Amino acid sequence: MTRTSIRQFTDQPVAKDTLDLLVKAGMAAPTAMNKQPWAFIVITDKEMLNALNEVKPWFNLKTATAAIVVCGDLSKEEKDWSAEYWVQDCSAATENILLAAHAYGLGAVWCGVYPNPEILPAVTKLLGTPEHIVPLNVITLGYPAENPAPKDKFNAESIHYQKW
Amino acid sequence: MTRTSIRQFTDQPVAKDTLDLLVKAGMAAPTAMNKQPWAFIVITDKEMLNALNEVKPWFNLKTATAAIVVCGDLSKEEKDWSAEYWVQDCSAATENILLAAHAYGLGAVWCGVYPNPEILPAVTKLLGTPEHIVPLNVITLGYPAENPAPKDKFNAESIHYQKW
Repeated sequence: MTRTSIRQFTDQPVAKDTLDLLVKAGMAAPTAMNKQPWAFIVITDKEMLNALNEVKPWFNLKTATAAIVVCGDLSKEEKDWSAEYWVQDCSAATENILLAAHAYGLGAVWCGVYPNPEILPAVTKLLGTPEHIVPLNVITLGYPAENPAPKDKFNAESIHYQKW
Repeated sequence: MTRTSIRQFTDQPVAKDTLDLLVKAGMAAPTAMNKQPWAFIVITDKEMLNALNEVKPWFNLKTATAAIVVCGDLSKEEKDWSAEYWVQDCSAATENILLAAHAYGLGAVWCGVYPNPEILPAVTKLLGTPEHIVPLNVITLGYPAENPAPKDKFNAESIHYQKW
């Protein structure tokens, strides 16, 4: 949990087996009512990475050799307020993938897509996702070409005891 | 990431230092635009745990010796669509806390609160949280009195390559 975002990568590719293990780590996350309302798009194709980078240049895909798009699958949710849980479930899966990436010596960045109205339509169009599949983010991946120090974000003022 | 939910705990208390380390792990999660839109309520008081359990008995607080309530702090967000990012950020923090709990030999369960309209008002009232603080969940904690096998949720059909 002391990982930090990596935005510059070497040209060493990430093996398919490693990417599958990252997705497997994502699928180990808990989900509300065990619905597992997710899907994952694993991208190593340089043209697709470049196209995603054109949608939003801060995707940090310029030097990334892979990406995983974590998507919500709304067809697995009920038709009531609980449908919103996919955001929490897919965020937990994303954090698992980031930590697994770090454990495998990879660098990664969580690049938000949903609910950004400026990029969500372009990303869904590019990936060809059907209406019930919502890309939550693009996780950029690769072997680190930089070694930034982790941020210390601990703030005692944000902790309360027993009640507010 | 191979942890599983623990719902039965021994009566061994969880030390304050350990609970603080769990919150610190939560605060190590990445957040959109580094806003850190969160607050954490650490509970060890048995009366408060019992009161939370009465709000919703599947909080699994009957034998839990501690809980951490992960809250969104909307005062740290912009007043546009990006305000919704607190759910993703606090979910990543929650997953970090669950994994840290496992690493420290603790058991835990992520019990959803937001956006459940049946329990959110009662939880905010009990905790005395102001309007800009939204409890996302209650993480029940304690030393495990059971040892369930982790669920294998891997599903190859949920993985796509290059595009949908």
